[in-house]
Amino acid sequence: MGNSRDKRRAGEVRILPLPINGEIRAGDSLSARLLAAARILELRFLNGDILVIKHKVVSKAEGAIVALDTIKPSATSRNWARRYKLDARVRELAVRESRRIVRRRRAVLITETKHGFICANSGVDVSNVDGGQHAVLLPVDADRSAAKLRRELKKHTGIEIAVIVSDSFGRPWREGLTEAAIGVAGMRPLVDYRGRRDPHGYSLHATVDAVADELACAAGLVCGKLAGTPACIIRGYAYKRGNGGARALIRPAQNDLFR
Amino acid sequence: MGNSRDKRRAGEVRILPLPINGEIRAGDSLSARLLAAARILELRFLNGDILVIKHKVVSKAEGAIVALDTIKPSATSRNWARRYKLDARVRELAVRESRRIVRRRRAVLITETKHGFICANSGVDVSNVDGGQHAVLLPVDADRSAAKLRRELKKHTGIEIAVIVSDSFGRPWREGLTEAAIGVAGMRPLVDYRGRRDPHGYSLHATVDAVADELACAAGLVCGKLAGTPACIIRGYAYKRGNGGARALIRPAQNDLFR
Repeated sequence: MGNSRDKRRAGEVRILPLPINGEIRAGDSLSARLLAAARILELRFLNGDILVIKHKVVSKAEGAIVALDTIKPSATSRNWARRYKLDARVRELAVRESRRIVRRRRAVLITETKHGFICANSGVDVSNVDGGQHAVLLPVDADRSAAKLRRELKKHTGIEIAVIVSDSFGRPWREGLTEAAIGVAGMRPLVDYRGRRDPHGYSLHATVDAVADELACAAGLVCGKLAGTPACIIRGYAYKRGNGGARALIRPAQNDLFR
Repeated sequence: MGNSRDKRRAGEVRILPLPINGEIRAGDSLSARLLAAARILELRFLNGDILVIKHKVVSKAEGAIVALDTIKPSATSRNWARRYKLDARVRELAVRESRRIVRRRRAVLITETKHGFICANSGVDVSNVDGGQHAVLLPVDADRSAAKLRRELKKHTGIEIAVIVSDSFGRPWREGLTEAAIGVAGMRPLVDYRGRRDPHGYSLHATVDAVADELACAAGLVCGKLAGTPACIIRGYAYKRGNGGARALIRPAQNDLFR
């Protein structure tokens, strides 16, 4: 049976949830909290693991959080909020955090953030914070956040892992949110098959896979909205080491047909 | 140690590749091929498993394949192909398979397919076929394909699984392809958190997750372009049973800001 069990797992990818006990506050060490969480589960990081972590805990640890009562919304934001029965201060923050409004219709505001991500409300979020008194922003530089976490985990464990910071984004044309990588460290976020040939000798000329986004989505299966599990380890996926960061996932404006 | 091993796997999701030996041809029974593949690996389907399968083998089994030398491209397609050094017949097929052209710029053609999916070239693909003589189309009705596979696998194993048929789609604003569910059976493709409260009592008013797409992306980590592994089993994800099909993932035009 030993043999068949090994065979059964050839090529298997595992997604291992890492629940964190208690709230994350500004100044908390995320690496310490993650290592404590892993210890409770008797789970060790292994070389080649990928840590995927929801941006919200990263933002909280970095203090990228705003007390809503410090925000004075503009007349435009107030009018909009009255009309759609939403919070004018959150709208105001979303506009402030944006570089550009991409679309605005009814209650929906799609913006380009200062980082270049295109998403609803510049990623400003009041869920899973403290019941509506504070809003969480995106990390100032989630690639840097990912790199810091990777460095700290390596320092404490000696293990080389990749780190992905993720957020839930909507998409045009399709219903529902999926996870997107907004910070990446230690791996190439894109895998490029261009110029390689399929088993039939046909050249794969348009095949670049956004593996960091696929990993973020896989993590989304265990890092639920309500589960208190903001992170997980993905094990068994042979990513390509390297750099690039999540910025490599942002399509340059001149190549984009939908701005 | 037995105990710690169990604890270690609490909540774990596993992605188990199902490589298929040999080509799939029109009329082949996919369920028989998948069961044979599972047998070789000594892998049994379990209740609650999710089978994710790339549409290309589904299309091949269903005969949704076209000999390119039967296609007479229009003058428009010929001009375009000459300009970008691509195959005029593939362009012609992409236009024929579309309901509407969404964007057209340089070599890129984004269409709305007859099913309502918005993707490049109506999903027409010549990679992983036979070196450029045939093109594979999307299945006529991938929800029906998924339901048939689910029914057949249940008949042979007695096991209730969900089935997702996937394709690789590009996205606006972000580089690289990710997997999308184009056929779904046995599970709800969207999980709706609206009206539920987060642990802080804040109502989650905009949170609908496209779990079928996240599952497709997770599968994309093992179902590689070059790996000869067109399917996998995802085990440990507690999907919600029900219907809906991948059609539920298509945003109605009137709610879409990017058509």
